[in-house]
Amino acid sequence: MGSTALIVIDMLSTYEHEDADALVRSVRKALPGIGTLLEHARGAGAPVVYVNDNFGRWRSHLGEILEAALAGRHGDLVEPIAPDDQALFVVKARHSVFYETPLAYLLGQLDVQRVVLCGQVTEQCVLYSALDAHIRHLDVVVAVDAVAHIDAGLADVALRMMESNMSAQLRPSREITFEGATAG
Amino acid sequence: MGSTALIVIDMLSTYEHEDADALVRSVRKALPGIGTLLEHARGAGAPVVYVNDNFGRWRSHLGEILEAALAGRHGDLVEPIAPDDQALFVVKARHSVFYETPLAYLLGQLDVQRVVLCGQVTEQCVLYSALDAHIRHLDVVVAVDAVAHIDAGLADVALRMMESNMSAQLRPSREITFEGATAG
Amino acid sequence: MGSTALIVIDMLSTYEHEDADALVRSVRKALPGIGTLLEHARGAGAPVVYVNDNFGRWRSHLGEILEAALAGRHGDLVEPIAPDDQALFVVKARHSVFYETPLAYLLGQLDVQRVVLCGQVTEQCVLYSALDAHIRHLDVVVAVDAVAHIDAGLADVALRMMESNMSAQLRPSREITFEGATAG
Amino acid sequence: MGSTALIVIDMLSTYEHEDADALVRSVRKALPGIGTLLEHARGAGAPVVYVNDNFGRWRSHLGEILEAALAGRHGDLVEPIAPDDQALFVVKARHSVFYETPLAYLLGQLDVQRVVLCGQVTEQCVLYSALDAHIRHLDVVVAVDAVAHIDAGLADVALRMMESNMSAQLRPSREITFEGATAG
Repeated sequence: MGSTALIVIDMLSTYEHEDADALVRSVRKALPGIGTLLEHARGAGAPVVYVNDNFGRWRSHLGEILEAALAGRHGDLVEPIAPDDQALFVVKARHSVFYETPLAYLLGQLDVQRVVLCGQVTEQCVLYSALDAHIRHLDVVVAVDAVAHIDAGLADVALRMMESNMSAQLRPSREITFEGATAG
Repeated sequence: MGSTALIVIDMLSTYEHEDADALVRSVRKALPGIGTLLEHARGAGAPVVYVNDNFGRWRSHLGEILEAALAGRHGDLVEPIAPDDQALFVVKARHSVFYETPLAYLLGQLDVQRVVLCGQVTEQCVLYSALDAHIRHLDVVVAVDAVAHIDAGLADVALRMMESNMSAQLRPSREITFEGATAG
Repeated sequence: MGSTALIVIDMLSTYEHEDADALVRSVRKALPGIGTLLEHARGAGAPVVYVNDNFGRWRSHLGEILEAALAGRHGDLVEPIAPDDQALFVVKARHSVFYETPLAYLLGQLDVQRVVLCGQVTEQCVLYSALDAHIRHLDVVVAVDAVAHIDAGLADVALRMMESNMSAQLRPSREITFEGATAG
Repeated sequence: MGSTALIVIDMLSTYEHEDADALVRSVRKALPGIGTLLEHARGAGAPVVYVNDNFGRWRSHLGEILEAALAGRHGDLVEPIAPDDQALFVVKARHSVFYETPLAYLLGQLDVQRVVLCGQVTEQCVLYSALDAHIRHLDVVVAVDAVAHIDAGLADVALRMMESNMSAQLRPSREITFEGATAG
């Protein structure tokens, strides 16, 4: 069987890196979709896991990262999708949400078989995380209106790769439900 | 070359598990040794990494875990060895400090070649962590007066195993320095 | 549910390392037990996985390792427990059968939930492999008459550790069956 | 410092999967480039590691896989790039050459800092392996005339992704040397 979890990738950001401007425009468009997913997942009682860079600060934890992101240049992009009291949180150091993190262990303990991916960056962390989920035999759904890119051309091909080579389903957020592994 | 890091294992505890009483007696004896190690490591500017169970709460972070431990039955065992502002922090889910955690990655980034282990439980997490450090080709030092056990007999044999089969050095805390990989 | 697999640890050996003499005496006593386990597992159609050091030769594979072991000083210790045509084979580089090997992935694909450990060395690879199986939530059975040691005292305590701290069942080979996860 | 290794991906194939025809045409074009790389690497005494699917046969080893590939539909695509006596060999079960394999450990033991990737499939295993090498802080070179694709459009974008997002160098085989980490 297995249940479905929502994975929110790198959305707690201070947007200070060099490609931030292109990314911010895309994030702004993805926010409503992420909001919809959060509503669906929270309503269904499904696990919501924020997986986020630690910005090289290995003391960093949810409170500290969230505070920095809210106080950053684009706190308005963070506030609407901020974690609630039930949210789970995993710190990552590199691109993929699975690399040297306890995420696979956590999903195993929660008996999760299907992950819904949203967040940033479509042609980077989202692509790599879809691969690492597929390689671990998890079912992958990508919420196409809830992922943000830097390079629109690469992002389009990244989505095609996820669909054709990683067996990912591409779906709009409003159609994605969290009631069970077979829902969609 | 590589530097030396101090690894403080599972010392942020609420001591609510069933073997807590035997453990608490041993922890009380280990506290001065851990204090000495913290003083040496902090004085030398060496990395100090607290690796700690998350008690099944995947939101848990340094602040939350520390607060719970300080407010627990034996806050007096936590307060003297609490992390300072420079301390690094890694959450673990299972016995070994390396299993499904970013510790190996973090130590690699810090160019650490030698780890000094202290904390609890000698015949369990400390033993397993010594093995997992040795298997990763790290040099292991165990601070014999700064580790706490539940079963004294098993702990003695665990220390012998670390020395004979994992190439670990067994040393008293006062003799352990952190100035470089070859110091000791 | 999950099925049961027999894991044969490091039995394809040329016995050229320095502790070989003490080990060989113990291996000789363990051979009948390993034979019984092989008979039970093969009879039940259960997976039998030989996990073996590669002796630093990364070209090494089953044929090459087996040939070297059979031609070594103690080919008589290898011949009775040699892999048959159905045996699976995993090369390891370090102590634990799980460290940087595909064993966990392979067991997952085979839906194995319970592993029966036999082979060498009780207080080293067998102990470490029992830990790494337990940490991965596998059920562990150690065939007490089918494991070989170098140091009898450490081996006895290692078995106690596996039982008390790693939830391992200690059983004689003749009582271990492979018909299902709950058998024993 | 660190040295350079040649990684030959999935070239020992029976070409029986469904996309084989498109792939075979591309492999034929990539063969001379792979030959050049093998010549350069062997001439420099650099490690050459064949990493190959095991086709679900966990007994499979170099001899068995090579034999099946040579006897397959396109043995002529295997013979010119077959491993020599010095070649190293790692079996993989899934897409990336690093996932659940000992490759990272092996490269660490050989002090390899830079990997040259060739083989198949550009927009799949080569892309994923480039990512997994980059995430492990290895320097990546992709031999653009020595990789084979199924979908030319996806392959082109995959190469752009490796260059822009994984810091990979794209080079023709004839310009790639193996004398040291800084050569190229």
